[in-house]
Amino acid sequence: MSQLRRDPITGRWVIVNVEEPSGPDAFEKEEHVFKGINCPFCYGNENLTPPEMDVFRNSGTGPNTSGWQVRVVANKFPALINTGILDRHGVGIYDMSSGIGDHEVIVDSPEHKSTLADLSDHQVELVINMYCQRAMALIQDPRFKYILIFKNHGPSAGASLEHDHSQLIALPMVPKNVLEELHGSHHYYNFRGRCVFCDMIFQLEQGRELIISENEDFISFCPFSSRFPFEVWIIPKRHSPYFCHMQDREKPALARILRETLIRLKKVLSDPAYNFIIHTSPLDEVNEESYHWHIEIMPKLTRVAGFEWGTGFYIVPTPPEVAAKYLREVK
Amino acid sequence: MSQLRRDPITGRWVIVNVEEPSGPDAFEKEEHVFKGINCPFCYGNENLTPPEMDVFRNSGTGPNTSGWQVRVVANKFPALINTGILDRHGVGIYDMSSGIGDHEVIVDSPEHKSTLADLSDHQVELVINMYCQRAMALIQDPRFKYILIFKNHGPSAGASLEHDHSQLIALPMVPKNVLEELHGSHHYYNFRGRCVFCDMIFQLEQGRELIISENEDFISFCPFSSRFPFEVWIIPKRHSPYFCHMQDREKPALARILRETLIRLKKVLSDPAYNFIIHTSPLDEVNEESYHWHIEIMPKLTRVAGFEWGTGFYIVPTPPEVAAKYLREVK
Repeated sequence: MSQLRRDPITGRWVIVNVEEPSGPDAFEKEEHVFKGINCPFCYGNENLTPPEMDVFRNSGTGPNTSGWQVRVVANKFPALINTGILDRHGVGIYDMSSGIGDHEVIVDSPEHKSTLADLSDHQVELVINMYCQRAMALIQDPRFKYILIFKNHGPSAGASLEHDHSQLIALPMVPKNVLEELHGSHHYYNFRGRCVFCDMIFQLEQGRELIISENEDFISFCPFSSRFPFEVWIIPKRHSPYFCHMQDREKPALARILRETLIRLKKVLSDPAYNFIIHTSPLDEVNEESYHWHIEIMPKLTRVAGFEWGTGFYIVPTPPEVAAKYLREVK
Repeated sequence: MSQLRRDPITGRWVIVNVEEPSGPDAFEKEEHVFKGINCPFCYGNENLTPPEMDVFRNSGTGPNTSGWQVRVVANKFPALINTGILDRHGVGIYDMSSGIGDHEVIVDSPEHKSTLADLSDHQVELVINMYCQRAMALIQDPRFKYILIFKNHGPSAGASLEHDHSQLIALPMVPKNVLEELHGSHHYYNFRGRCVFCDMIFQLEQGRELIISENEDFISFCPFSSRFPFEVWIIPKRHSPYFCHMQDREKPALARILRETLIRLKKVLSDPAYNFIIHTSPLDEVNEESYHWHIEIMPKLTRVAGFEWGTGFYIVPTPPEVAAKYLREVK
């Protein structure tokens, strides 16, 4: 019989196949096939993108030339744009807002074929520094209420270009999924006087079977109520609601564990497509004690179908304790 | 600039590309490629499935032989199973339940290559009758709190067999997405004293640009805050919270508009993969006045990626008013 497990933050149930768990070989390997184009994210092609908005580059090199380590440009096909005033009004029973926001691409490195897993710890740290720097810059704009940072790796995870990159979207409202987590963890805090994520870390450390690895500042683990097979979260041991308030000493520790985790996923699942999303509180000081930022990595191994759309339940063929064992033990 | 629209039921925002709408040709046509197998849903192969649980069949034909019109069998790979007691307990901060439920396959017709769009109105009515009959039978079981009926058409929508079929899952709790809709519409009702879906129908009839077609009992339309390009809802004009309390006269009207809508989608989008989900209140009498059952059809034309996972926002390349025009005008 399967087991139903409920996430204490969102109330989401998942159906876990504990009796006949699928191993890594149960999932179809996906070839990452991209259209062959002159890559706009490679050295020498800086003129193929909009001008850079932010950059880490070698001293002595000019803007929009090669010689950069991490480069930020506007998305050429933005979901939201950064000019104009915020116009909000009702349309009968619906609410409407102009599409004000910001949509940036963070090119992780000049290396076309390298994913975050293939880069050096130092380069991954640069990427993390850029995430923080852009989030801090954009949150100054009073039109923006939330900054989302995420990555789509592989076409089936929504990537349209092969050259690895991350994305940042600034939104004129706190999005629904974030509100849901904030409310859920706030509710838990009001009831128990503790952060649900700190409690999760405590529980992880009791059994340890869900932990993949840890260092002085972070733990990577498969959550007990994972939605997806081989879903991995990385969480700071220090309680903090805000990603971009990370301490300087934490950044290299995050770079190491993020890169290591992505290497493990790449080895166990043969370079799966995945999304990762940085979950953080908006800088509103309301969720100071109840929210705890973290990263969720979701390999794309299964399809979301009618059942998931209709219920919000997820069917998980690989229990997280089985996934964690594979990921922990891989060489 | 894009336009943000907010759904009044769930509070979900969508980002609609109103300036450069994608037409039907903007989406990649998908070939529905299935593994070639001896089809368990065809006449003569009744022994390849578990025994039938319910059936409409020609008089004089025996159970588990050919001669049926609609056949219901247990899912061979069930997400939940129908034996055992409901065991619920806590695991630290998590809740757990045994995987009690029911997972049935409703084979829509004996015709291997026919989708609902290709069948007769009468055959589609038989399928709808079977949906109601199974839902009414299962809801008698006190272990089940919700019955979900849905269809996955095409591999990218999660179908694993070519022979068209629907699915029914009985759940030991009301699922999150359903609760969210019930709460949202209840909140709207408390505030305005009106059903949000009845208000939606009123608003549809003012402008009419979102309406695809209608008959005496139903309207099919593209909702103003569609999540997906060419998303279509079918809603009864008569306020009623419960799908399975449909009146006898409404069933043929639903069969006609459902089939017609699927034909329109098939023509405009070249047989797209899609999910449809019947949204209904549980039979708890709490949502009598505030909820209104309906069907949501979601063609699979775009990919859900990091942005959607992180926010619950959806990016919609085809505004619903544009989609409705294509669907309304197709021959």
